[in-house]
Formats: sequence, structure tokens, C-alpha cells
Amino acid sequence: MITETELNIGLFGYGVVGKGFYNLIQLHPELAINTQQIVVKHEANHLLDENQNLSYEANIILADTNLKTVVEVINNNNDALAIAKKVLGDGNTLVTANKRMLAENFEELYALLKSNGGKLFYEASSAASIPIIKILDEYFANENIHSVEGILNGTSNYILSGIFNQNLNYNQALKQAQELGFAESDPTLDVEGLDALNKLVIINAHAFGVIVKPTDVFNYGITRIGNDDILYAKNNGFIIKLVAHASVNIQGKLLLYVAPQFVKSSEQLYHVNAENNGVVVNAEFSGEQFYYGKGAGSKPTGAAVLADVISSKKSNGYGYTKLRKQNFIKYDIFQQVKVYVRYNKNIDIDLLELDIEENLSFENSRAVKGKIYLNKLYEYKNWLESNDISVIIFS
Amino acid sequence: MITETELNIGLFGYGVVGKGFYNLIQLHPELAINTQQIVVKHEANHLLDENQNLSYEANIILADTNLKTVVEVINNNNDALAIAKKVLGDGNTLVTANKRMLAENFEELYALLKSNGGKLFYEASSAASIPIIKILDEYFANENIHSVEGILNGTSNYILSGIFNQNLNYNQALKQAQELGFAESDPTLDVEGLDALNKLVIINAHAFGVIVKPTDVFNYGITRIGNDDILYAKNNGFIIKLVAHASVNIQGKLLLYVAPQFVKSSEQLYHVNAENNGVVVNAEFSGEQFYYGKGAGSKPTGAAVLADVISSKKSNGYGYTKLRKQNFIKYDIFQQVKVYVRYNKNIDIDLLELDIEENLSFENSRAVKGKIYLNKLYEYKNWLESNDISVIIFS
Repeated sequence: MITETELNIGLFGYGVVGKGFYNLIQLHPELAINTQQIVVKHEANHLLDENQNLSYEANIILADTNLKTVVEVINNNNDALAIAKKVLGDGNTLVTANKRMLAENFEELYALLKSNGGKLFYEASSAASIPIIKILDEYFANENIHSVEGILNGTSNYILSGIFNQNLNYNQALKQAQELGFAESDPTLDVEGLDALNKLVIINAHAFGVIVKPTDVFNYGITRIGNDDILYAKNNGFIIKLVAHASVNIQGKLLLYVAPQFVKSSEQLYHVNAENNGVVVNAEFSGEQFYYGKGAGSKPTGAAVLADVISSKKSNGYGYTKLRKQNFIKYDIFQQVKVYVRYNKNIDIDLLELDIEENLSFENSRAVKGKIYLNKLYEYKNWLESNDISVIIFS
Repeated sequence: MITETELNIGLFGYGVVGKGFYNLIQLHPELAINTQQIVVKHEANHLLDENQNLSYEANIILADTNLKTVVEVINNNNDALAIAKKVLGDGNTLVTANKRMLAENFEELYALLKSNGGKLFYEASSAASIPIIKILDEYFANENIHSVEGILNGTSNYILSGIFNQNLNYNQALKQAQELGFAESDPTLDVEGLDALNKLVIINAHAFGVIVKPTDVFNYGITRIGNDDILYAKNNGFIIKLVAHASVNIQGKLLLYVAPQFVKSSEQLYHVNAENNGVVVNAEFSGEQFYYGKGAGSKPTGAAVLADVISSKKSNGYGYTKLRKQNFIKYDIFQQVKVYVRYNKNIDIDLLELDIEENLSFENSRAVKGKIYLNKLYEYKNWLESNDISVIIFS
């Protein structure tokens, strides 16, 4: 029987993911991973192993020169960034699940990584149990990717599945998701597409070698989807999914968005139900690939963190092959998408400059189908939201 | 722009996969992979680059001490084994797509790998474009897997899709597959489940850490599926797929088979159509995962070979974590499965010792549903085949 080299780690955070990870390494003593120190913000409500060192002081980990591997699974974005900068600045190893911290600071962290020789792993950040970062970074390192489309947010997918599979309305589906722990009491980050957007930014860096700021990407949530939209979808053989989209056209223009999308039963994403995640990759030589798995939860996310910690023992980190190479792909928001826009009858949507193909009329609202430049949706996002306008993209 | 370290390789074989791989590295000169030598058995019908060194003599590669990386994509099993033994015996690197050679000699090659320090990669062998070996070997290295089920043979899946989606009969579907290049003129290895069996043996070693000989596993092809079976499946909401199955029960007993299986629409494998492959992994912490992609073809398989060649530059090869650890999982053929057996009316199936739950009667045949010990199917396989008995397992 082999014996693993012992690894002492510092763990920040003991919430859903932290507990999942901690329980896993207790179940697998043969991995010889010791949580030498755990730092939490507030007194943990849950009993730790009595031999465990629990602290409220970040420096207990960060100033300990013997702790060269840090696992960070906290919620606070600023604290997470401070930890990341310190660990990578010291040339040490960081495993994180914090998608927002990563997405908002990707450029800076990537530069720090290159200059100081630390290691950074974040498989758990993007689709929890689906090893999409590893697959993109390693397997597709040298293959051109045409598109990546994913259902990356379990909460909104759970709600949309309730709407389409159980005929619930939005509020009923949200309530059910909250009762079962698939939605937080304030679900804004999930249902408005911000969580999926952060994941898309991370995935995009590996798939296309382009770092984009989350604030530069159009994202639209699922909260304005109404009964007319649901009926329209059903009558036309669609369901609606919150889709994170990245694709490149033959001119190297990168299209990015997170938005409700009509999905047909012949598409793989159609079959991603409940809290699950799914990612479809279309690549030059491999053709279409589809990856499906649990997108959240204590155990699946904890397992992804553990896989990263184990990788960190022998790997130097991601290859970032596409980021390192000369890249002809550029993010371009001035591209057309085919869209469905439904609005109340008293609203004038001329400012969107739609190229209208079809007009639809409902009892209390009307809708248009047509082409629109994505920058228009981006520019008028606040206006769209405040006028409760439903925007759904055709794939 | 980064420059890659040059890598000189020797390439055995210039058939479908060899050409796919060769074309890929021509398209990506920045990878700096040089096919210093190509060895083929017969004069290649296809034009090579005029600067390319083509030979018919294996030793041109094998005796060249400057060629430390060998790609082998030939069909002949014995030749492939001789190449593998020589390359790994010399402590060099072998990338192969030869599932049969690997499955039949896994124990020996693994021993050679351990003793002589060479490197072996074979992602292309098991599900072509789906990186299932990498995922199992790395991502699930330290997570217990409950089951792996896959559609691993594109030819038989193409035929079954024709039967269920286009209402073709077996011969019509086979003919279509042959015309489109998805089936060979002699499709025996594919339709009798031998190809899928070899892939299952390789996958199983990584998923469960158990090396099993292909000849010790029950495999049954799709050629005896008749109209009565198809109608029975349709009437009960099933389709039939050729499924490669590996699962472990709570006593650590490993169940393995390749056989036609009834699949419901709620199962991921239901949606794997035409020549595609799909693999469902059920793991302790990650739950259910599903991977889908092209299972064959020049480009997808060539891309998998290329990914391996690139991996070989920085990786020491697979971790084989589960093979290296103390393992309580044992292959056990004395386990029950739920099965449907249809036979001509003049045949007595008592010798199968079925625990019958239901009798079914068709115009010219009858069938039983019930439980059976897998060893009985294994033991009476020749008898089942020669009596044209249809065997379909319930998932």
C-alpha cells in the first residue's frame, strides 16, 4: 500500500463547501491531508474535531511559513481577494471556490501567478463537480473551440425546471427551491445571472484565452419571465434555460452573454434538470461534447476542492495555453443575436433598434422576434429591467 | 508568444486515426511536434508530406535512440503489443489508441510501466474524444465510484439509433451504417460487443482499481435483437442500447458486463444517439456525472492522441491511484442481474436457472423476465448465441 506525502493546509471558511471538504478528508485519512489550521469569521456553529485548531485570525494561517497550501472557501469577496494576493504573492498554493473573486480579479491574479511562481486551483468555482476547467485547460489546450454553452447556476435551473416540468409559477418554484435549500433567502445573485456570469468569465479565459471583466458582459436574469413567455415557449416546443454563452465566429469575434434562452429537446442542455449543471463544448476536431453533473452542494463542491488539493501536490497549476499564446480572438459586443423581447403595451421599444422579424400579441403585452445588437441590450439593461421587459435569446 | 519545446516522435500507422493525428499536427506547427519517422505496414495509399520519412521497417523507429516518444495507431494486435513492450521496456513514452492490445495485456503492461519507468497514455482507446481516462484517473482518483455505465461503441449505437429513431430493421440499419462509414464491412467486433468490452476493461482499471481479463467478462452483442424485442421495448417506454456496465455493491463486489440494455428516457444514456458515445459515472461525493461526445472518427480520435502526446511532455503518466492502493473491491461474476430472455418456442431455457417473474408470449417466440446469475449467462454464452436467444438486461 502506498503512503502519500503528508500535506498540511490552512483552511479559510467552514460553511457548506468547507464542511464538505473537511468531512471528505476525515473520511480519507490515507490522503494524509491535515487541516493544520481553520480560520472562520464567526464562531462556527458546528462541532469540529476537538484536536482541530480553530481561529478567527487570518494571520494564523497567512503568517505561518510552514503552511504553503491554503484552501479558501469563504463568501466575502474582499477578504478572499486579500487572502489570494498574500498567498500568491508569497509564491504559495491557493485552492479556491470563489468565482466572484476570481472573475473580478482574473487579470491581476494571473499576473501575480506569472510573476511570483505560486499555484492557483479553482475547479470548484465554475461548475462544482464537473471538471470543466481541467478539461478545457488540459484536454482542449491545443484545439480551437467554437463555443461553450452552459447551465452554470443550479438555483435558477431548479426554478426553471419547476416552471416547465411541474407547471409551477416563478414564485412557487422559487419557494420550493428555498425550502429544499437550492435557493438562498436572497436569491438575487443566482436568479439575476451574476453567479453564472462569473463562472462564464473563468471558463472563457481557459476556452478562448481572453480575459473579460464581468461588468463588460450582458447578463439578464430569469425573474422577468412571465406566463406569456412560458406559454409561447411550450407552444413552440421550447423550454427556457438560463444559459451562459461563449462563442467565436470565423472573424475571431467572441460573443459572450448570460441570458434566458429558448432550448429545443434536441439540444443537450434541454435535459439538464433541477439543480444540475451542464456544459456543451463544440471544438474543431472533437466536435460536440457535453458534460453534466451536480453544480452545487456540500459534497460535490467539497470533492472538487479536494481534487484540486491533491492536484496541487504534483501539478504546477493550469497551463493557460490559450492565454499564453498569440490570440486572434477578441471580445466584441457589437454582434447580433436573435432575440424575443416581450413588453407591456404602453412601452416603446424603438430605442433597442431591433431588426424585427415577427410581431406577437398577448392579452396584456406584446412581443417581437428579431435580431438585435448585443451592445443595445447591454446599454439599455437598466431600462429593460425597470420596465419589466422579458428578454429571451434564441440559440 | 511562447515557443514549445520541440518533440520528435515516431508514428506507427497511417490509417483513419493516424491521418487524423498527422493532419492535426500539420495544422498546429506551433506545437513543434515532428513526426520524424512514420512506419506503415503496407505502402500508404495517401500522399504524405514529401519531406516525411516513410518506412515499412519497425526498427527504424524502435532502434532510434533519439526517438523517445512513440505513437502507435495500428490495427494489428500482436504488432502493437511488440511495440508497446519494446518502448516501455526501454523506459520510453508510448501513446496508443489500441484498446484490444491494452485490455488483453493490461497487467503485463502495467508491471512493465512500474519496473522500467516508461510512460503510457491511451485516452484515445476508450471513448475517443471523451477524456474519460483522464477524468477517472485524476478527478476521481480519491473518490469512491459506485458505477460507470457507458455507450462505448459508435457502430452498434448507430445501428440501434436507426432501429429506434428511424424504424429500420437490423439489416437496414447496419447497411446504412456501413454506407456512411460508421460500420466496417465485417462489423463483428463492434456489434458483438467486443470493442466495448475492451474499453470497459481499461475504464474499469482506473475507476475501480481492478484489472480484469476481457475473456472473464460476459459480453453479448446486438445481433440477436428481433422485432419482438423492439416492440416490447417501445411498448414499455424503453429503447435498447449496448451498455458497458461496471458497478460495485456495498460488499465490494464488482459487477461487469457488456450487453443490450433497456434504457428509459429519464436516463442520460437514452439521449446518446447515432455514432456518439456517452459515459455516466456515479460517485460517492460528486453524485451522477455524464460525459458525451464523438466516440470515433479521424479528427476526434486524432485529437485525443494529440492531447496525450502533449500531456506526455509534462506529465509522468496516469496516477493509477486506485490500482496502487489496497483495494477491497473484487470482481465477482456470481451476482444477479434482472434480465429479459427471448427464445424460440422449441427451446428449453431451464438450464439458465432463471428466477422468473413474468412470462411473455409472442407469435413465434416466448420470453421471460426475471433474475439470473451472471455466471449462468457467461457459462452458456455459446449456447445462447447458437440458439439465437435474445438477452437484454434491465438497468
